[in-house]
Amino acid sequence: MINHGRPMIEKKAETSVPIHELIARRWSGRAFAPDRRVADGDILALLEAARWAPSCYGDQPWRYIVCNKYTNMEAWQNAAACLSAGNQSWARHAPLLILVVADNFMARDGRANRWGQYDTGAASMSLCLQATDLGLMTHQMGGFDANSARKLFCIPVQCTPMSVLAVGYALPESALAPELKERELRPRARGPLSEHFYDGAWNVPYVIT
Amino acid sequence: MINHGRPMIEKKAETSVPIHELIARRWSGRAFAPDRRVADGDILALLEAARWAPSCYGDQPWRYIVCNKYTNMEAWQNAAACLSAGNQSWARHAPLLILVVADNFMARDGRANRWGQYDTGAASMSLCLQATDLGLMTHQMGGFDANSARKLFCIPVQCTPMSVLAVGYALPESALAPELKERELRPRARGPLSEHFYDGAWNVPYVIT
Repeated sequence: MINHGRPMIEKKAETSVPIHELIARRWSGRAFAPDRRVADGDILALLEAARWAPSCYGDQPWRYIVCNKYTNMEAWQNAAACLSAGNQSWARHAPLLILVVADNFMARDGRANRWGQYDTGAASMSLCLQATDLGLMTHQMGGFDANSARKLFCIPVQCTPMSVLAVGYALPESALAPELKERELRPRARGPLSEHFYDGAWNVPYVIT
Repeated sequence: MINHGRPMIEKKAETSVPIHELIARRWSGRAFAPDRRVADGDILALLEAARWAPSCYGDQPWRYIVCNKYTNMEAWQNAAACLSAGNQSWARHAPLLILVVADNFMARDGRANRWGQYDTGAASMSLCLQATDLGLMTHQMGGFDANSARKLFCIPVQCTPMSVLAVGYALPESALAPELKERELRPRARGPLSEHFYDGAWNVPYVIT
């Protein structure tokens, strides 16, 4: 049965004004349910969400390689093999590992695309928010061996492997392994708004009135 | 009055399966209402949405410089001055121009951050979706002089100006200038899913079943 509800553990962002609940509820947990498959239609919705992200000149520089444990164990194992040991320890329970790749050159004219990685990040965010809406949990990992990924998945030199994106269902709190419990339940944190958001000039904090 | 409703022109994404309406409805129009201010609380919601995006090591490499025509005309004019002539022709009606900057080094340890631009793209996507929810329209521009922006806004060398993000209310269809009408009403388009989304291996199209 597909759970089109909320993930088990709620860790809503603390904000000075309300934001959309999809954005507030998304968070990168580690405790994936090892035995719950993501339905094909839901995977498609994740990809469609990424597909409709904006990009410079509409070039769509993102490439996603979906590695589904339930349909292509070899691809999934290759993706898992690229992960750092720390990430493997929990990501091995995620039924989907998606290798996210950015093209650094424009498809339209072959020139350098300085927005290739930026636009790919946008598409991944869209995918993660769609996942939140479907009751799925996502967790992107930078901790993987990009060279191994390049070799195993034959990524062309003009492209950069950016992230391995784990997708699956979150375990309920009662099922958390002791080594994950503290981290999974810890409140989410961000720097103060004034640290990264400026008002009209560099380093002038945007003041909350 | 703040319009917490939908933008005037609906151009929902065409998808093989339904996706969240926030993602389906976001699009980058050009016809901004020149006389409608964005409320301070709504600007804050945009920034909070960006703030809660995920980032590698939680480093939050994004920096946003908000240039609000209604509160800081000089900053807004500086942002507008960086735009290409083509973009200026319509973006000059947007009450907010936000300069989006990516830090290429980690705040945590000063080492190179190869996810700086990727993560910043994710934060901008979050901002744009929050805007959609508030009835606002967004349009990111790569067509600006990054060197001018760097000088005018004193951007440190370790950071890269990625985008100027226009925010405001969309004009209703009846108010569209003739030179914008065709482009504003043209259906949105993306490449086929199979072109950018692969199944287990590079260039193996993800097949819609």
